[in-house]
This record gives sequence, C-alpha cells and structure tokens, in this order.
Amino acid sequence: MDYVYGPGRNHLFVPGPVNIPEPVIRAMNRNNEDYRSPAIPALTKTLLEDVKKIFKTTSGTPFLIPTTGTGAWESALTNTLSPGDRIVSFLIGQFSLLWIDQQQRLNFNVDVVESEWGQGANLDILASKLAADTAHTIKAICIVHNETATGVTNNLATVRRILDDYGHPALLLVDGVSSICALDFRMDEWGVDVALTGSQKALSLPTGIGIVCASPKALEATKTARSVRVFFDWNDYLKFYKLGTYWPYTPSIQLLYGLKAALELIFEEGLDNVIARHKRLGTATRLAVEAWGLKNCTQKEEWYSDTVTAVLVPPYVDSTEIVRRAWKRYNLSLGLGLNKIAGKVFRIGHLGNLNELQLLGCLAGVEMLLKDVGYPVKLGSGVAAASAYLQNNIPLIPSRI
Amino acid sequence: MDYVYGPGRNHLFVPGPVNIPEPVIRAMNRNNEDYRSPAIPALTKTLLEDVKKIFKTTSGTPFLIPTTGTGAWESALTNTLSPGDRIVSFLIGQFSLLWIDQQQRLNFNVDVVESEWGQGANLDILASKLAADTAHTIKAICIVHNETATGVTNNLATVRRILDDYGHPALLLVDGVSSICALDFRMDEWGVDVALTGSQKALSLPTGIGIVCASPKALEATKTARSVRVFFDWNDYLKFYKLGTYWPYTPSIQLLYGLKAALELIFEEGLDNVIARHKRLGTATRLAVEAWGLKNCTQKEEWYSDTVTAVLVPPYVDSTEIVRRAWKRYNLSLGLGLNKIAGKVFRIGHLGNLNELQLLGCLAGVEMLLKDVGYPVKLGSGVAAASAYLQNNIPLIPSRI
Amino acid sequence: MDYVYGPGRNHLFVPGPVNIPEPVIRAMNRNNEDYRSPAIPALTKTLLEDVKKIFKTTSGTPFLIPTTGTGAWESALTNTLSPGDRIVSFLIGQFSLLWIDQQQRLNFNVDVVESEWGQGANLDILASKLAADTAHTIKAICIVHNETATGVTNNLATVRRILDDYGHPALLLVDGVSSICALDFRMDEWGVDVALTGSQKALSLPTGIGIVCASPKALEATKTARSVRVFFDWNDYLKFYKLGTYWPYTPSIQLLYGLKAALELIFEEGLDNVIARHKRLGTATRLAVEAWGLKNCTQKEEWYSDTVTAVLVPPYVDSTEIVRRAWKRYNLSLGLGLNKIAGKVFRIGHLGNLNELQLLGCLAGVEMLLKDVGYPVKLGSGVAAASAYLQNNIPLIPSRI
Amino acid sequence: MDYVYGPGRNHLFVPGPVNIPEPVIRAMNRNNEDYRSPAIPALTKTLLEDVKKIFKTTSGTPFLIPTTGTGAWESALTNTLSPGDRIVSFLIGQFSLLWIDQQQRLNFNVDVVESEWGQGANLDILASKLAADTAHTIKAICIVHNETATGVTNNLATVRRILDDYGHPALLLVDGVSSICALDFRMDEWGVDVALTGSQKALSLPTGIGIVCASPKALEATKTARSVRVFFDWNDYLKFYKLGTYWPYTPSIQLLYGLKAALELIFEEGLDNVIARHKRLGTATRLAVEAWGLKNCTQKEEWYSDTVTAVLVPPYVDSTEIVRRAWKRYNLSLGLGLNKIAGKVFRIGHLGNLNELQLLGCLAGVEMLLKDVGYPVKLGSGVAAASAYLQNNIPLIPSRI
Repeated sequence: MDYVYGPGRNHLFVPGPVNIPEPVIRAMNRNNEDYRSPAIPALTKTLLEDVKKIFKTTSGTPFLIPTTGTGAWESALTNTLSPGDRIVSFLIGQFSLLWIDQQQRLNFNVDVVESEWGQGANLDILASKLAADTAHTIKAICIVHNETATGVTNNLATVRRILDDYGHPALLLVDGVSSICALDFRMDEWGVDVALTGSQKALSLPTGIGIVCASPKALEATKTARSVRVFFDWNDYLKFYKLGTYWPYTPSIQLLYGLKAALELIFEEGLDNVIARHKRLGTATRLAVEAWGLKNCTQKEEWYSDTVTAVLVPPYVDSTEIVRRAWKRYNLSLGLGLNKIAGKVFRIGHLGNLNELQLLGCLAGVEMLLKDVGYPVKLGSGVAAASAYLQNNIPLIPSRI
Repeated sequence: MDYVYGPGRNHLFVPGPVNIPEPVIRAMNRNNEDYRSPAIPALTKTLLEDVKKIFKTTSGTPFLIPTTGTGAWESALTNTLSPGDRIVSFLIGQFSLLWIDQQQRLNFNVDVVESEWGQGANLDILASKLAADTAHTIKAICIVHNETATGVTNNLATVRRILDDYGHPALLLVDGVSSICALDFRMDEWGVDVALTGSQKALSLPTGIGIVCASPKALEATKTARSVRVFFDWNDYLKFYKLGTYWPYTPSIQLLYGLKAALELIFEEGLDNVIARHKRLGTATRLAVEAWGLKNCTQKEEWYSDTVTAVLVPPYVDSTEIVRRAWKRYNLSLGLGLNKIAGKVFRIGHLGNLNELQLLGCLAGVEMLLKDVGYPVKLGSGVAAASAYLQNNIPLIPSRI
Repeated sequence: MDYVYGPGRNHLFVPGPVNIPEPVIRAMNRNNEDYRSPAIPALTKTLLEDVKKIFKTTSGTPFLIPTTGTGAWESALTNTLSPGDRIVSFLIGQFSLLWIDQQQRLNFNVDVVESEWGQGANLDILASKLAADTAHTIKAICIVHNETATGVTNNLATVRRILDDYGHPALLLVDGVSSICALDFRMDEWGVDVALTGSQKALSLPTGIGIVCASPKALEATKTARSVRVFFDWNDYLKFYKLGTYWPYTPSIQLLYGLKAALELIFEEGLDNVIARHKRLGTATRLAVEAWGLKNCTQKEEWYSDTVTAVLVPPYVDSTEIVRRAWKRYNLSLGLGLNKIAGKVFRIGHLGNLNELQLLGCLAGVEMLLKDVGYPVKLGSGVAAASAYLQNNIPLIPSRI
Repeated sequence: MDYVYGPGRNHLFVPGPVNIPEPVIRAMNRNNEDYRSPAIPALTKTLLEDVKKIFKTTSGTPFLIPTTGTGAWESALTNTLSPGDRIVSFLIGQFSLLWIDQQQRLNFNVDVVESEWGQGANLDILASKLAADTAHTIKAICIVHNETATGVTNNLATVRRILDDYGHPALLLVDGVSSICALDFRMDEWGVDVALTGSQKALSLPTGIGIVCASPKALEATKTARSVRVFFDWNDYLKFYKLGTYWPYTPSIQLLYGLKAALELIFEEGLDNVIARHKRLGTATRLAVEAWGLKNCTQKEEWYSDTVTAVLVPPYVDSTEIVRRAWKRYNLSLGLGLNKIAGKVFRIGHLGNLNELQLLGCLAGVEMLLKDVGYPVKLGSGVAAASAYLQNNIPLIPSRI
C-alpha cells in the first residue's frame, strides 16, 4: 500500500499531470512488445497522422519524442536555430521564465520581453522590435500559448498578424503545453512553425511523450541549424520515417497504445467539443472565484485561461498552506504559486479529461479550505455561481441521448 | 470504446455496486492461478481470519461464496432451516420484499411484518409475536439491517434485546448487504446468527462474493436443517476448511486478491473511522436534502441510513427523469425509486470508498438536476449546508499528517 | 508482493482456471458501474446473442449466472426436473462423480452408469436402459462432454443418435465445462437440452460466470419442474429479459466486459480455428507422452481429450510429487490426480488462450520433472515428438500474414 | 482489438524491451498524481537509494531521467566532457557504433578502436594508447559492457586494471544498457565513473527512464564540462535533490511506482540470484545453439553474453526470414541481425524477468523455425542440451520451499 493512502478518489486539480481516463489506463495495461515487429510501425503511422489533427495542421510533421515538455522545448530550439541566433521571447510567468533560461543556456541571443506576472505577452513591443528589425536579425519568436503559472493565454493570431504586417520571416515557436487539446489552437492558420505539448497535459496521458510538430519552414530550418543535437535531432526521426520503421530508438509501447486510446476519446467527443468543455470549466471556475470575492491573477479578460486559474489570496493568507491542507484534509491536489507569486496564489487546473461535477467537487473543497485558513467565504457561494452557469450550458452527452 | 463514453469520471452514487479504489483495481489486475497450489489456501486462510473483523465476530465462521447477495440470502436460509419452518420477516422496502419472496419460494412459513415504506421494522409486533410464541414455533427472525430501497436502518441491538427478553431461541438472520463495513455492526455483541453482505457494496469490490458469517448456533442448526442445498451448502466448505484446501469449487482468484487489498485499506483507515466517515457523509447528505426543502423518504431520525438516502420529490416531478438525466447530462449515476416508490424517490448512495468532495460534487449535480426538472431549488444551498457541517468535521488524513 | 513470487511467468497448465489473454485482462481493468443504466442492458443483449455462437445454437436461451460450474450444474437440474425424477448419469471420473453427488443430494433418482476411470461413458448401457424404458420413466440423461479428471471426451452425437433411435423424450443435459469453446460442440445439431460451461475454462476469463444454455424443450420443462430454486431460477432471468433490464440481481460489470473481449478474440480467431488449435495442442501433448514411454490415462483413442491429458506415472513414482515440484522449482502449474487416481496421474491442461510454444515450454518442464523424480526419460524426446508434428501443422497467424 | 492478435502469449525474446512481470504491470496501473505533493518526493528518495544497489555503488549519485538509453548516453557525455575532448571508444557492434556516432556528432574527438563484430573490445590497443598518452589528452574511455547486437560482454575489471596500471585519470563511461541488473556489474569496485541503463532492459519495465549513475569524480567533472546541455543537465537534478523536491521537470508517476515494484522483485529474488539466473539462461541457450550445430556470433567464450545470444546462420539461410516467420507463425519475437550482420544472425534475448521454461519454449520454437527455413536441425536437440544442464542447475524457488 502507498503510505499516503486516503479514502476515496484523489481530486487531481493541478494543471498537469492530469486525470487519465479509464479507457486510456486500460490501453496501457500491457506487457512490452518488440518495437521492430510490423505492429508498432503500423500503429505509429496511424498515430502520426492522427496527432496532426490536434495541432490543426495538415502540412506539419509530428515527432513523438520520449521526453517531457522541457525536452520538447529543447528539440524545438536546437533543430531550428544556431548558437548566437537572436530570439524574441516573452517572460510572463514561471514556465516562460524556464524556457528563456533554457534558451540562454543553449547560447541563443535572447531578447526578453517581460510583462508583469498576470499579464499577457506585450505584443506592442513585439511589433516595435519587428519594425526595427529590417535586417531580419530576429530568427525566432518564442511564446507560450498558455502560461501555466499565472493562467494567462496569449493571442497567437495577433502574433501571426504582426509578423505578417511586417513581412518578417522569423520562425514562430509555440509552447502549447497547457493549451493544445484544450484551447483553440490552429497551427496552419496561425502560421506556427513549431508547436509542442506534453502527454501528461490535456491529452490526459502519463508523462513521457513530448509531442512536437514542425512546419515545412521549420523543417527547412533544420538544414542550416547548427545547434548541437543528437537525442533530440528530428533528422534521425525523419530517416526512420522514410524507412517505415519510425523509431531511431526505443519508444514506450504503453504510451503509444495510450496515445491511440486518448486520441480516440478526443475524436469521439470531437476536438471542438473538447475545447468548448474547457471553456465551460474555465468560465465556471472564474465565476466561483468572483463569488468568493477573490481576484484572478490574470489581469484582463482577454488573457483568461480556460485550462488553469491562478487565484490571488488576501495578504493575510498563505496560499501554500491552502495547497498543503487540500492534500492533507480533502484529498485534493491544487497547484502552488511559483517563484514570484509563491504564497500569493493557488492554482486550479481544469484541463484534460474532466467534467463539471468533478470541478464542482473541487470548488466546494476550495470553499472549505478558504474557511479553514480564515478567509470569510460564504460556503456554497462559488458552487452556486458556477452551477448557475453550468446548468444552462452543459450539453447532453451525445453518446447517451 | 464503450458506446456510452462521456468525458471525465463517472460519478457513481447508486447504493451499489460502488466505486472500487485504485489499489483494489490494481490487486485484481492479474492472470488466473491454480487454486490448488499452496498460495491460494494460504491467502484464503488469512482472508477468513480478517473478514471476521468486519462482522465484529470472533466466534463466527465465514464463507466466501462465489455468488451475489441473493445467493448469500439463500445460503443463510437453506443451511439453517427446514421447509415449513416459521420465520418472522419484516417487509419495509424492495429488498426486504425480495428476500421474503425468496423465503416463500423456498417453502418456509413466512410471517410477514409489514411497515409503510420509509419506516423501520415494527419491533413492537416482533415483541408481541415472541411473547405469544411460547411453543417456540418461530425458528428464525429475518431482518435487513439497512433497507437499500428506502434508506432505513433497523436497530439490531433492540431486536436482540427483545429476543433475550423473551428468552426466545429463534435464529437471528441479518441482511447486512448495505450496512456491513459502513454502519456499526456487531455480530457477536448483538447475537446475530447469520450475517451477510456482498462484495460490491461497502467493501468496494466488484460483484461476485457473497460473504456470509455463521454463529456457532447457526452452524449447529445446519445439522438438522432439511432444506435442499448443494452449491450453497456450508458443509462442503467446512469439509475443505478441514482439509486446508478451503475450496469445494473454483473461487475467483482476482476477487480473493481484491478482497485482501480491500481489507487492507479498511484496516489501514480503521474500521471505526470508516464507519465515522459514512456517518459524516450520511449527515451531510441529509443536511443538503433539508436545505433543498425536500423530504427524506425515511420517516424518523432513528432510522436514518448513513449509506443511502432516498429523497422524496414533489408530486409534479418524476424521479425517474432525474436519474435518467443525471446519467445523460452529468455523468452521474443515481439510484431509481423501486416498486411502490418508483417515480417518487431518487436515491443517493454514499457508501464504500468515497470521500467528501466526491459527495459534494454529486450534491451540486443533484441541485442542477432538480432545477432541470422544474423544482425551484436554490443552487448551492445543499452544498452550503453540507459543507458547513463537513468543514467542521472532516479529520486530517492520518497517513498525511 | 505475493509471498510466493517466482521469477518469470507462471506456466499455468491446470485444466482451469486457465490463462487470461491480455486484452481480456485489460477489458476488466475498470471501476464498477450502475447496472441499471442503459449501458449494461445494451451490453448484455449483445452478449446473450454472441454467447449462443459458442454453443452452436440459434434456438437456445443463454443465462449468464454469477456462479461457478457447480452452480451451473445445479441450475440445469433444478430448472428442468422434479425431486424423484429418474436420471441416467455416467460416472467416469471425479467431475462426473461430483455432479452425480449433487444430483443425489438434490433428491433425484439417479441411475448411475459407471465406467472404469479412463474410459468413456458406456453408451451400450444407455441404449439398453432406453430400450427398456418404454414408459419413459427416465427424465434426463446427464453426461459430461469432457471429463476433466481423466481427459476423456464422450461422443455426444452418439448419445443423441441413441436417444433418437429409441424415440426417447428424455432431456439431454451436458456438462461442457472443459469442452465448450475448445472442443467441437453442437448444441442444436446434437439436440442438447441444457449445456453449460464456466468462464474460467476455455473462455479464458476469471471464475465467476456459469454460462448455461437451454433448448426450447428445456425451457418448456421449467414449467413443470418442481425442484426448489430461487437464486438459480431461470424464470427470474426470463422476466428481466422481457423487461429489457436483463438482471434479476447484480452482475459483475468486469466479467461482462471481459466476456465481450473474450468472445471478440474467439470470433476474430474463428471458433473453428480455436477448436483446431486445441486439436493441435492435444495431439502434440499425446505425442510427447508417447515419446516419454508413458501411458495416457484415457484408454482409447476415440476418447482422447484435446483439452486435458492425464498422464499415468509408473508405480514407483508419486504424481503428486511431480505437481508439487513443478510449482516449487519450475513455476509450472500442473493438475493433480484426483480421488481414485491420486498419485497415479498428473494432468496437463491445454485449453483456453494458449499457443504451441507455451505448450512446448511446459512439455520441456515435464521432462525435467520426470527426471527429477527418477523416471528415466530422454530429455528432449517429448518436445521433439510434439514439435515434429507441430512444425508441419501450425498455420500462419491470419492477422499477421 | 489490436490488428495483429495471435492466440496465446507473445514470446518476447528480443533483447529489450523485455517482459514486464505482473506485479510491475499492476503497480503502474494507476492515475496520475501531483508530483509536487509530499508523496512523490518521498518515493523518489527511496528509489534513489535503492537504485544504487543495482549499480553496486555507495558513492555514486543516480539520476532517473525521463528518456531512453540514447538520452542516457548523451547525459553521460555532455555532463562530463567538453567539445573537442579526446575519447577512446570501442566499436564492436551496432550499439557501440551508434554511441560513437553520437560522440562524434557531439563534437568530441573520438579515437575509435574497432574490432571485428563478434569480438570484444581490443584492450591491448587501449593499453598502448594509454601508455602513449603521458600528457593525459584522453579524457574518457567509452565502452559498452554488453554489446546487444552481437552478444559480446567486455571485461570491465580489466579495463579498470589497465587504467590503473598507467595511472591514467581518464573517466570510465560505461553503457550498461543490456547488462546492469543481469550481469555482474560493480560500479565502485571497477571504478566506473558513469554507468547507465534503460528501464526496458533487465529492470523489466516499460521504456521511459534512462538510469544514470555518476561517481564523485564524474560529478566533479561536470564543473568544467563545457558541453551544452539543459534537459540532460545533472546540475538541475542536483539542485532539486537539495530542495528535497527532486524533479526539475515532470516525471512519469507510473514508471516511478513501477520502478519501486521492479526493485522489490529484484531484491526479493536477490541481485546475485538474478545474475545467477541470467548465467543459467545464457548457458542453456549456448548449449542449444551448439546442439543445433550452429555458431555463436561471439567468437570466444570470455566474451559470451548472458543476456543475449546472436546466432550465426548458414549462408544459404536469411536470418531476417527467421525473425519474420517467428512472429508470423509462432508468436515469437526474436532480434534481427543489425547492420553488417543483417541477414546473418538472429538474436535471442534472455534478460529480465524470465524463467527457464519460457526459454525452453523459445528454443523449441527456434528449432521449428530452423526447419522451416531449410536448416537440417534435429528437432528437440537444443531443448535436450539446454534442459540436461538446467535440470541439474535450477534451484528451488526460495519463497515456495
């Protein structure tokens, strides 16, 4: 037995890793297999086709790399850029900070555009930098679609528009870790050159696959990119794609079958319905926060995230204590405030395979927690606000009509 | 894929089968084994010792029969009684009705004591019948500890006291299907002669084991009981107990390992803590029902059940529609009203491996359902009432302190 | 950890419970569900249709009873016969003995036709009894298709022919526990009135479903059968079949999904291919036994069983020691000799989801065991004989061509 | 259903990924968890202590990197070396070739010592290079302990002795992918500076953890190593080790619990018993190969591998056809010949959680395959040779005595 057993189900509301649906757990409940038999390449071929749909791309080339989001970041950078290349990168929270740290350690020349945490990427500065860069020294724009630390969603369509306005050829590299499969994401339409996510986020799998998708322009860039790379080298994958054996090294058999099951569930629900469900869960969460009299860390509605909500607590409350107590008393897992906002926010992840009553159970738990730590919340207020909205908006489950 | 897939977790609030905890699902995730190897008898021996603890008996003899509650009922009757024997049996809801039907079809002379559905067993009538029965024609008292259809818990201590008051030797046969492992149950102290439950109830396993425990007096009764029985014959078990091989026929290997894991979880939490948790969940549910302005089907507090609450709906509402809609819209499984009270009640099962936030999610769902069907509930009211109580009463999870 | 852990895979060669294929284990790896939702009846409906195929019947009515083979026997008898009814029953080994014991304890008038263990049912005596029974006092013929204790398969086509020859109306009740889904079985063609098996046999599931199929004539017989029955009463099932809810009491959700997966595997392979595979495995086993210089307990080729082989050991060897040592040294589970032939035979079960290399591993193990206990076997001899046959007869796996 | 379903169990005899034992599959059958809760760091702490035992080190520092063996290689190199550093590296087969390719692409100055495939590393040349290198320009020796492509085990104790003889300070970097947990490996005693393996090899887990262990000297080297690294940077791990949160990015929860179970099984069996079992399986395999009249690709006994045997086929046979046919006809997965020896050898992996009867089933299959492709093998000959040895050498299973 695990030494931390608590009765009933763990309520997992960190913004990743998220709940794995039972059909996916089942699909992964298996022995190893020879990945050089005809079965695994055939499975992989299907997966590579299907995974493009979650990026909304037809021209992109996907890679299923046995790594995490951090490794996926590294693959996006080293396959397309050379040391010393100038990158414009937006610092808006802990995860964009970590990516920038990686960019610097990989010896790129990072032009950091910082915003206050709780705000989105400053696209006016992007515009001015592009305007000034007539020599096209900027080789790539790096941006998180959704900053998981603050619950801020950046507007990628606008980023593309600005690039187009200036006819700037910089690559657009997007961290979609907490967005893809949950938020509206359109690789082809928005001209994203590299997009990436991790299996343990909205795809609702265990950690272990960094899913990266490269545009034709990104693939072209690999030919001149001089960053050193071996494990993360896309060309090794492409070589095996051509051979039809697909894998330069051993994949996780279990995760491949799990990915198949996860994609089947997403396509059965319909990707647009999945996105609408996340919008519903995000809206309900924000209505609860408002009813509690608390503030969203995200400063403007245009940046509200439908996958994670960072809730600001009053100065006399330590948000870390809320998270600790959630786990110790309610079997509820919430996200900590990170770095600058440690102690000041707690985070509710509402992404992946999740439904409304699960969220309402979490919100009821948060209300008790707020009371536990001395915040004068009216019990039931957040649930009431959320369910007033949800009761009007939840559709019937299509397969059960 | 199952054709009825809905996103997120199914909220299972029927009063059985109930949620299986992950460690138990894991324990059952296995191939078959030879049940005649030394391993299975050794496991069985431990299980038979441990299972006595959930009945609070030291003198009883348990049987793990590959059957359901209905089969467990049949084994209790046919092993201890002869055709024509007079039984006093209490009809207070659908499950006691079904047991009485079985008693009659097994050719016992059943003296039915009926109460209005929503009331407990009429123990005054029991007293008068025992008083009149100086010839001891009554061979057994059959009573459900907890009537699952109405959420009524009978007072077994009182039943024992009445039997003792009259020095009556009748056997006391108890259906503990929706009580044992959840409600306070004391086989030895209350002089219960046969007690039984099913694996899919508070033990939180799949269906498949009828768990029956017999007092020494019940075992003595088998010697004269002339009811025909083979599959359900305890003597076949006792013969194999003596041989040390334990099984007259093939058990489910998976359920044995599952039972081991389930008991470990119960003992880790502490049986009394498990019972306290059920009291907490039952109380919270009743507070919600009250806040909604609805009535409990159970007519008096003394009979309130901590494992299931049957909620009466107003005449203009069809409770069946609530249950149907719960499944189709909210991925919530509630219990139907049965037989006489079909359409008039819906039932919330709150037994087994369940915690408070799960229940609050369910209650939030019921509120939306009530609104869906036109009942003017104040959203959040039930959750508020329940969490006001819970926030004061939930203990820290001991393994996490 | 299980206290009897041994490295590598357990080689399960008892004639039940047998190996569960991974897709079936996966299908059962799930939480409970409400069996009164629309999902379970829909699943059940499909299962009832599909399960008829393994009996090769179109007119039969199947019952999926939460019980074991022993319970399935009881349901076959009590639903069709009345106490005192005359039955002709064949005693040819331990399992037919146990069934006869049940028949007697259920108060039927059992006319036992005994054969030496290792021989099939004496059908000449059947013929003479039927010839003499012009008054049709014989109400049923009870016969095991395959006696699991001795590895003897009876010829059911001949039984039917004899019944027809005498125009005798007796019901034909068949224990197909170790035959159905493995041996050629034709319910309709052979005029079988009740056929039954257990889930843990050739279907390769865990124990827990007694699968019983009744002919229209058997269903007609229920109307006059006066044997007492409740749990096993087919009429309760038929009532719920009509209602479309299918279950008089709680089924195992896991086993239903497991049965679905098991049937899918069988139909994907093709039932006739499954039967051919068993013939191949049985033949290979017998060739090995012959090569070892040992005798098959089955005395004539016409009775050879393709699901289990009972191997006679020389008088100076204790077969029980072989079985014990198999488990303790080789992680191999063999079947014991039972009752009269205890110590004289060990049994190799070769039924269910099993392939040729698994069998050859077992045979190699048996060779070492024989040497361990002092029998002068030539190592490799049995494997050589078996593989000489198999190498000529194994087909390509259709899905991999 | 998987489209390549074949009846019975897949016989997995590639040299990785290998069979996962049931207790490990069970341990991984779980939902995600918050890796920032107190539970996962506590688990990780234990794992880091326990994993050192399989390296036989007390002074080493382990890293559990979410990657494959290829990534583990890269972490070993980039954390300890700088671009341009001179490395002596031995090319003896496909996997050492791939590692050398990586070393070159990472811009090291690789001094390749090539042997004929089937021979071990040429340690005489190592000695002469070290002798000549009085300036200590050689910064590291890179060697595979066991070359998986040819079944050649190098003598690491000798490598250490040579280094010591010349008092040479070069780091000793060892690929133990197909050796650690199966072959005798002694990190501290042999002065190995970095050792590494992959979870899907002898640990018998799914792919997904690159397990790397660094000596104090290797950790010291990280301070001056100028190779660019972020994802693979050990210092990021060390930083989180100090914080007690252990993970710089998200680990796979499932693999952590799986690793715990895998280590428990290994320690229960006893690491030295595990190694003895591999020696037994390796010896048995080689005896079979000899009995078949075939040659081992490994040219001398001193290099024989106890984890994989590469079998040379006669020129008129295509070994690729054997592997293809194994899968298509016998549900047996064998390893292909790679690169130079494609078509010339097939490989039998005998590592991980495997026992003797499993191996004998495989050997019986190989015999039929050899016959299938026209090689005049005597069926049973290899099994006979292997079991003559095994029958004398298999110990009783300790937990079952």
